[in-house]
Amino acid sequence: MNIVEKIAIMRESIQAARGKGLLVGLVPTMGALHEGHLSLVRRCRDECGFAVVSIFVNPTQFAPNEDFDNYPRTLDEDYLMCKALDVDLVFAPLRSEMYPGSGHSWVEVDKLSDYLCGASRPHFFRGVCTVVGKLFNIMTPDKAYFGQKDYQQLAIIHRMVIDLNIPVDIVGCPTVREQDGLAMSSRNRNLDPGQREQAACLHEALRKGAELIAGGQSDPVRVIADITAVITAQPESHIDYISIVDKELLYPVEVINGPVLIALAVQIGPVRLIDNILVDPPQKSS
Amino acid sequence: MNIVEKIAIMRESIQAARGKGLLVGLVPTMGALHEGHLSLVRRCRDECGFAVVSIFVNPTQFAPNEDFDNYPRTLDEDYLMCKALDVDLVFAPLRSEMYPGSGHSWVEVDKLSDYLCGASRPHFFRGVCTVVGKLFNIMTPDKAYFGQKDYQQLAIIHRMVIDLNIPVDIVGCPTVREQDGLAMSSRNRNLDPGQREQAACLHEALRKGAELIAGGQSDPVRVIADITAVITAQPESHIDYISIVDKELLYPVEVINGPVLIALAVQIGPVRLIDNILVDPPQKSS
Repeated sequence: MNIVEKIAIMRESIQAARGKGLLVGLVPTMGALHEGHLSLVRRCRDECGFAVVSIFVNPTQFAPNEDFDNYPRTLDEDYLMCKALDVDLVFAPLRSEMYPGSGHSWVEVDKLSDYLCGASRPHFFRGVCTVVGKLFNIMTPDKAYFGQKDYQQLAIIHRMVIDLNIPVDIVGCPTVREQDGLAMSSRNRNLDPGQREQAACLHEALRKGAELIAGGQSDPVRVIADITAVITAQPESHIDYISIVDKELLYPVEVINGPVLIALAVQIGPVRLIDNILVDPPQKSS
Repeated sequence: MNIVEKIAIMRESIQAARGKGLLVGLVPTMGALHEGHLSLVRRCRDECGFAVVSIFVNPTQFAPNEDFDNYPRTLDEDYLMCKALDVDLVFAPLRSEMYPGSGHSWVEVDKLSDYLCGASRPHFFRGVCTVVGKLFNIMTPDKAYFGQKDYQQLAIIHRMVIDLNIPVDIVGCPTVREQDGLAMSSRNRNLDPGQREQAACLHEALRKGAELIAGGQSDPVRVIADITAVITAQPESHIDYISIVDKELLYPVEVINGPVLIALAVQIGPVRLIDNILVDPPQKSS
C-alpha cells in the first residue's frame, strides 16, 4: 500500500491505474477510522480495481469555535486498518498541499445547505463541497463512497455532482452502529464512559419517532416532542436540532404524508453527535 | 466537423479523441463569433489535436435586467466559421441540457470577484465560474483558451483552476481590435453607426491613461480624471467604472508604483462595453 502526500504523485498514480484499465474508487475521510469507514472501504475494495482512501482533516469545514484542534487524529492506526483491507493507496496531504494559502474559490450548494447542520454550522457544507470537489479533481474517481450517517452531506454531494456534471458515481452506504445503536463516529472517542452510555439516546429517540410515524402520527410537532423527551432524559444532553424533513430537498415538512428523514444533532457533554433515520409513513387509503 | 448538443455524446467524443492520444483544447464562447474568438480558435487548433468550441449563452451570468434576450445569436454563421478553421467539434447545448432545472450548486471565487465588473454585476462571475466549471467537467480539456479583453474573467478562471485543482492549462490570449482600436466584442453589433464611432473612445482613453503612467504620473485619481474626460466627450457614453487595479488581485491601488491594469466599463447608447490595458510604470531611481 502506498501512502502519498503530494497531489502531483497522486495524479501519476491514478493515471497509472487507469492505464491498467482499473476502475478508481475513493473513500474520502478525515481519518480516525472506525467500522463505519471500514464498511465504505470494503465496498470500494469490492467494486473497484484501484481503491483509494483519503485522510485529511479539512480546516475549511470547521468554524473558529469548533473542534478542529481536538478532532481525533490517529494516522498510524488508520494506515494499518487500510493496509489490512488491501487498500491500494492512502492520500494523506498536509494542509499546505491542499490549501497553499491564497485560496479564494468555493463550491457551494444552496437550499439543501440551509437546513439541519447547515443552519447551525453556516459555511460547513461550503467547506465540505470545496474539499470534496478538490479531491474529485485531483483523483477523478469513477466511484466515491459516503456514509448515510452524514445524510445531508451525502444529499449535498449528490446534488453537487449532478449540477456541476462531475463524472463520478456517488455511492451512499448504510450507517454502521454500536451494539446499543449509537452511530459510529470518530467523535465518539471524545466521550467519557458516562457520556458514551447517554449517547445511545440519539438512536433510541429516532426509533421512537419512526415508530410514531409508522403508527400513523402525521404531525411533526408531536413526533418531535416525543423525540425531545427521550433526549432530554439524559443529563448531559443538549439539543442542537431535531427536524423532520423532505428526504430529497431537506426542507422541514408541515405534515408527514410521504417518505421523510428524521435528523438530529445533539451535544453529549463536549461532543456534538448527529444521526438520522428514513421513515415511510403508512399508506393512507383514499 | 461534428455539432453536438448532448453532454453524453460530448463525453464519448472526448473519450474517443483521448483514446487516439490527442490533446483536447477548448474555446468556451457564447457564440456570435468574431475575430477575437477566432484568434483563440486558431491558437487552440495549432496547439491541440482535438479542438472543441463551445457555444452557449449562459443564463446564470446575466441578471434579470441585463441583455440575455438581446445577446446576439448567430449560430449558423458561427458553425461556418468554426468549420473554416478546421474545428473538430462544436458543443452547442440547449439551456435544458446545461441547467435541467433543479440546479443549486455554484462555483465562486471571492475577493477577485468583488471589484470591477463584479461590483456592478454581482453574481456575474458566479455564473461564469459555474458554467466554465461545468464545461471543464464535461470535456476535461487539457487546455482552455480565454481572451484578455475579459481580463477579470481570465484572472478569476485562473484562480479557480489553481484553487480547486482542476487539471486544465488556462491560456490567455491578446485582445483583438478593430482598426480604430475598439476591442472586438459580440455586443459591438448592437451599436448603431454613430455609437460605433463613439465606442472607439474606450481604447483611446486607455491609451491616454497608459501614456500618463508611462510619463511618471503615479496618482490614480489624476489618471482616472483624464480617462474620464476622453470618455465623457462622447455624447452617448455613460461610465460604469474606470479603475486602476493590482494586476493579480484586482484591488484598486492607491499609488501606481508597479504593474497595474487600467480597466473600464462604459455604456455606449444601449450597449455596455469593457476594455483594459496593462501598464508598467517607469522604474523609479532610488
